[in-house]
Amino acid sequence: MLDPLSPSALIADLATKARAAQRMLSRTSTEERRAGVHQVGQALRAASEDILHANRQDVARAEAAGLSGAMLDRLRLDPARVAAMADAVEAVAGLPDPVGQIIDTATRPNGLRLSRVRVPIGVIGIIYESRPNVTADAAALCVMSGNAVLLRGGSEARDSNAAIHQAFCEGLAAGGLPADAVQRVATTDRAAVGAMLAADGLIDMIVPRGGKSLVARVQAEARVPVLAHLDGINHLFIHRSADPVMATRIVVDAKMRRTGICGATETLLIDAGYPEPGALIAALVAAGCEVRGDERIASVADVVPATEEDWDTEYLDAICSVAMVDGLEGALAHIARHSSHHTDAIVASDEAVAEQFLAEVDSAIVLWNASTQFADGGEFGLGAEIGIATGRLHARGPVALEGLTTYKWVGVGTGQVRG
Amino acid sequence: MLDPLSPSALIADLATKARAAQRMLSRTSTEERRAGVHQVGQALRAASEDILHANRQDVARAEAAGLSGAMLDRLRLDPARVAAMADAVEAVAGLPDPVGQIIDTATRPNGLRLSRVRVPIGVIGIIYESRPNVTADAAALCVMSGNAVLLRGGSEARDSNAAIHQAFCEGLAAGGLPADAVQRVATTDRAAVGAMLAADGLIDMIVPRGGKSLVARVQAEARVPVLAHLDGINHLFIHRSADPVMATRIVVDAKMRRTGICGATETLLIDAGYPEPGALIAALVAAGCEVRGDERIASVADVVPATEEDWDTEYLDAICSVAMVDGLEGALAHIARHSSHHTDAIVASDEAVAEQFLAEVDSAIVLWNASTQFADGGEFGLGAEIGIATGRLHARGPVALEGLTTYKWVGVGTGQVRG
Repeated sequence: MLDPLSPSALIADLATKARAAQRMLSRTSTEERRAGVHQVGQALRAASEDILHANRQDVARAEAAGLSGAMLDRLRLDPARVAAMADAVEAVAGLPDPVGQIIDTATRPNGLRLSRVRVPIGVIGIIYESRPNVTADAAALCVMSGNAVLLRGGSEARDSNAAIHQAFCEGLAAGGLPADAVQRVATTDRAAVGAMLAADGLIDMIVPRGGKSLVARVQAEARVPVLAHLDGINHLFIHRSADPVMATRIVVDAKMRRTGICGATETLLIDAGYPEPGALIAALVAAGCEVRGDERIASVADVVPATEEDWDTEYLDAICSVAMVDGLEGALAHIARHSSHHTDAIVASDEAVAEQFLAEVDSAIVLWNASTQFADGGEFGLGAEIGIATGRLHARGPVALEGLTTYKWVGVGTGQVRG
Repeated sequence: MLDPLSPSALIADLATKARAAQRMLSRTSTEERRAGVHQVGQALRAASEDILHANRQDVARAEAAGLSGAMLDRLRLDPARVAAMADAVEAVAGLPDPVGQIIDTATRPNGLRLSRVRVPIGVIGIIYESRPNVTADAAALCVMSGNAVLLRGGSEARDSNAAIHQAFCEGLAAGGLPADAVQRVATTDRAAVGAMLAADGLIDMIVPRGGKSLVARVQAEARVPVLAHLDGINHLFIHRSADPVMATRIVVDAKMRRTGICGATETLLIDAGYPEPGALIAALVAAGCEVRGDERIASVADVVPATEEDWDTEYLDAICSVAMVDGLEGALAHIARHSSHHTDAIVASDEAVAEQFLAEVDSAIVLWNASTQFADGGEFGLGAEIGIATGRLHARGPVALEGLTTYKWVGVGTGQVRG
């Protein structure tokens, strides 16, 4: 018997309520879920004052605790951010619904008709850090795809999350959907995270949303399947056949447009046959980037010497490691050794080379003549994302509604026996 | 540093060789893999004498150790069984190839063309027990889908497995495929299994093939994703609208055709409104089945009283638990409480009732007017199966080549930056 006050008992209780609500949700039509999620958007707008009031308490507590600028910024809401949160929820209500889609269907020689039909996964656990908008974003994606969800936000945002959760559930209820489908893990006891990670059979999938230490802990401890990426050590390879103007533009964008996102390039690989390596380095430097180069790069430009560690480092900053490689084979070998299987790109005008790169680089996203910064569910046309996955099973790259579904085999017969 | 003689070091070494071979395999065309796997079939035929000789040693050892009839039968090969093994491998060579399939493709407003392309998962680990044919079957499915594989068979079949593995690799080499793609874990040290289960990042997916205790151990210990089913506690529900002739025929087939397979029905649920419950019981008894009924069944037929435990038992034997339930809702409630999410079926002529059953039963396979014994990759038209999965992620139900693949996002641009 579980101690009824233990974190495990708490999670089991929330997950059981969530499972029951998910069964009700699985009986709803697309239109009913759209209408319900749309009501959530309106409820968030209506609760804007309450949410901002709660958020001021979180921010005051964080300031008193000496939280840094970037973390405070992630925590802080204002009327525009609450409106954007409501907009995002309403956008999810408008996405194509994967639930009920028939993946394929065939009639067997004995007349048995078999189809694979998309269904919700069940109960999703979201473990996240300071940004309170994740509460609404992630829950909206889960509910729209027919799933129930357990939300475990960071303690620094607890009042904001509570207010958003309350408005969310009011919206669900007003829209005729089961409010129990969205459960908030209210305790700030860190053992509750461990209980979620161990809740095999109660929670069907965990999605961590936050920094590397959170993701690493979740991946190390979870008994429940995890959808995540730990690193985005992304490579951009400039082949000798690359158009120099295009190459320079993509290098600067891929590294410098936003340095803190997981799709940012961390390592630039320049083909030894590329005519103007110095111009690429100069463009990065001009954009404010620190360049750490290998010996061959040091022979063509004035750079900080790169160490072995640099090739395995996700800077998330205005720093770029740069290596000179011998053609496609050199690039493939470097990427095979150091890539985190997130996003890797090539700039080339030689089609055969590009096709080989796309085929052989084993990453969730491979790009030809485009910036790695496109690695994003919105840019990929998914309308949103629950996360980006670098694992090999289930779903890879940006994941939105479809990745929150599975399928079942539905067979319709006329009395067939195997006999 | 790993002790170079430790099971972990051994598995790391085999997995590293397998990964390198997999990279070579991923450069091969469908036709090259078909030809190579076909050569494996021929090599198995050519090695038939060697395989049978090795198998006699395993059988002699097993007999000396006092192994039981069923286990001995699973272990024993004869010329027909070796030929069947070769046939099965050649059949895999003829299956539709999922690798390279484009799942979907779209051009974004900025001109970036994005496709999801099926690719092999990478390195698969197969952990299995006495049947030596799994060595060839599973390896053929892995190689045909572009994956490398680590095979860990039971110690009782070690000589047979070694001979089959040797012939398999000779066939691969003769067919121009990398022989290192199929690695055999030769040690009989049980710690090697633990090392495989812990080999996160080295092995991408584990498939256990064997009895419940093996599967339970794998599911409990694995840090690597597992594709498996633990139980097949399958239900057959006879609705009041069922045609009695069809119902009787399906009941007898679903329970009694073969009682030891995972698709066999274990619990029969009879609607209280069904006119002839006694006839269903009588048909089971006439077929040699022990019937364990609840109190309501006991009032209409002479049965052994069922205990609470019966509803959660996979007999894999000529025993059937039978409950009387109140209509569809009663059946859904019983199944939600006791199903192992493998295969559940309804016999009904009322379409609305059947559709609701198919929609609401949360199992990998749901069937209407057909026997649960169809739960099988061959019967589902997959040509073979690596296993049946009852988890919710990645692949569900019978899994063959497609379930051994994942996808990557391939983006083709013309110089797009996010800007």
